[in-house]
Amino acid sequence: MNERQPARRPGGRSARVGAEVHQAVTDLIRERGYGNFTVREVAARAGVADSSIYRRWGNLETLLTDVALTRLNARSPMPDTGSIAGDLRTYAAQVAREITGPDGPAVLHLALALSSSGRQGLRAGADLRAERTRQLQSMLDRARERGEAAPDALDVLDHVLAPMYIRVLFGMGPLTPDYVDGLVDRLL
Amino acid sequence: MNERQPARRPGGRSARVGAEVHQAVTDLIRERGYGNFTVREVAARAGVADSSIYRRWGNLETLLTDVALTRLNARSPMPDTGSIAGDLRTYAAQVAREITGPDGPAVLHLALALSSSGRQGLRAGADLRAERTRQLQSMLDRARERGEAAPDALDVLDHVLAPMYIRVLFGMGPLTPDYVDGLVDRLL
Repeated sequence: MNERQPARRPGGRSARVGAEVHQAVTDLIRERGYGNFTVREVAARAGVADSSIYRRWGNLETLLTDVALTRLNARSPMPDTGSIAGDLRTYAAQVAREITGPDGPAVLHLALALSSSGRQGLRAGADLRAERTRQLQSMLDRARERGEAAPDALDVLDHVLAPMYIRVLFGMGPLTPDYVDGLVDRLL
Repeated sequence: MNERQPARRPGGRSARVGAEVHQAVTDLIRERGYGNFTVREVAARAGVADSSIYRRWGNLETLLTDVALTRLNARSPMPDTGSIAGDLRTYAAQVAREITGPDGPAVLHLALALSSSGRQGLRAGADLRAERTRQLQSMLDRARERGEAAPDALDVLDHVLAPMYIRVLFGMGPLTPDYVDGLVDRLL
């Protein structure tokens, strides 16, 4: 293969621009807060022309939806440790790591923005939560098949995920392992 | 008093413009989602000149922070029913009403935006939550003084408020009285 023939690698530049634009969006959300930047500023940060962004995504809202879905779909698979306590503790620790990492609050804001950004984002957000709930439900079903008592998926949302999300969204300090384990133990 | 002499009521026009601009912001968040509008669009919706908004608030971020603080400060006082169960059920029902009303999701997004909108918003949001936590703590302290067992304020946040906030933010259906009472009963 001849690396000097870009025409033979049609996805190369497009994929690189996509990754750079996505990272620029995540950085700008982290630095300025959601909603406090324009397409022009994303383009400048990513080192691409405004027109590249408009041609590919059409507008800022579609770009933000795309970033949210890409990040949320890249999350870790559900654990399968052999016990409901192990599965839920591992899952809660994964989520805590994801939402407290450098891009965590930005990704959480993007996820929330899906739910308030018109019909397209609303449906994409609902589809994404339905898929994630299905995965969680499979984990809980496995526990019941082993003869363990398992909570409902919505109780996991209400009493393990929601407290962690709200504490991160409100900037209320770190999610310590003791705190995260405590949420799971209390639910079980 | 002569109603035709506006110069004698200097706060009148200013207060009216303030209310109209605040309502325009809340409407635009509800219709388009947080972050999907400009100062120009707020001005057009409120029927004022762009320059009136820039003169008073400086920029969109400061305006959004002002709207959030005004709405959040206008919330109902803490109940005092004589029992911790009654107080918490009444409080949870108040919050459910506030966040599921027509402007509820918009106000929740504004509250979250405070936490990701630079130092000024971050401090204002933290001050607001500290004041609200102090009021909640007083309610819980009264219960203990009556000899009742009362949860910690952070447990109320984690297991009563956070699930309601997340369900509204994700657009996950209504908060029924049974659901809200159930969150309180489970905590107690």
